[in-house]
Amino acid sequence: MIILGIDTALRCSGYGVVEAQASRFKALDCGVIRTPAKQPHSQCLARLGGGIEELLKQFHPTVAVIEGGFFSRNVKTAMVLGMARGVVVGLCARHDVPIYEYAPRKAKQVVTGFGGADKARVATAMANLLHLDVREIPEDSTDAMALAVCHGLTCHTHQGLFLPAPL
Amino acid sequence: MIILGIDTALRCSGYGVVEAQASRFKALDCGVIRTPAKQPHSQCLARLGGGIEELLKQFHPTVAVIEGGFFSRNVKTAMVLGMARGVVVGLCARHDVPIYEYAPRKAKQVVTGFGGADKARVATAMANLLHLDVREIPEDSTDAMALAVCHGLTCHTHQGLFLPAPL
Repeated sequence: MIILGIDTALRCSGYGVVEAQASRFKALDCGVIRTPAKQPHSQCLARLGGGIEELLKQFHPTVAVIEGGFFSRNVKTAMVLGMARGVVVGLCARHDVPIYEYAPRKAKQVVTGFGGADKARVATAMANLLHLDVREIPEDSTDAMALAVCHGLTCHTHQGLFLPAPL
Repeated sequence: MIILGIDTALRCSGYGVVEAQASRFKALDCGVIRTPAKQPHSQCLARLGGGIEELLKQFHPTVAVIEGGFFSRNVKTAMVLGMARGVVVGLCARHDVPIYEYAPRKAKQVVTGFGGADKARVATAMANLLHLDVREIPEDSTDAMALAVCHGLTCHTHQGLFLPAPL
């Protein structure tokens, strides 16, 4: 199973591509899709779409995982984040890749055992699980890696019993 | 100038393709991209993306126009609408088509002279401006047609002086 984790945002989206065999994981790629500040929304979304499409074509992921359970009181922020998510979800669906979402707290809980873990602790857990040096993981792709591994572990440990419904 | 107007929503997005020469307009196409109820979000977004991409490839619009100034107190609604908008804006930008947005009130004001015009009045104005029988315009594409014509008129009547910045 190849899992594409995406930590979606308008200007800076982290991604991680992970191969899962049972509870063993191997990192295939990780990085960040970034648009320079001041670029208009349309350019950010075009770049995000182009980057995601490249990943879909290169790795043919079995499944994609994004961050869910986002709460904001600000309608404008929700709309902008929604736009970025729409690009990602739409492209995965057009490539027949099912999309799952996990709340950040849930993903941290699954990969570190503690839902309130800070970024450094998540990065250390990722480095251990993926047999990487922690310095090899770009900071902005840590959460994306955690989302991917969270899904792999959830599928494996409970035979998918607690798997959420795909989007 | 070929203008693609899109009244974006998750399950039912109207569109209108209009050719503008000075203040004379000709309807090239109009219709609705619809996903059956109960289909998951991902399928709605995939279908919306597929439909918009077909229109971009078939008509090579000079510009796309969407509804802006959307207000909602509900963060979830904003997120879902944002997802649909993200698919549309991202695809237009990837096809190098600039995107403009107009508030619904502004579009109605420009095409009927009255910002509070109801759907029937907008449809009548569209039928007159586009030399169509009003029954030829699907109800769900009326607003999309109005967005397209609004942009054409705004470009023409004030030499683009009051043109908003593209997205």
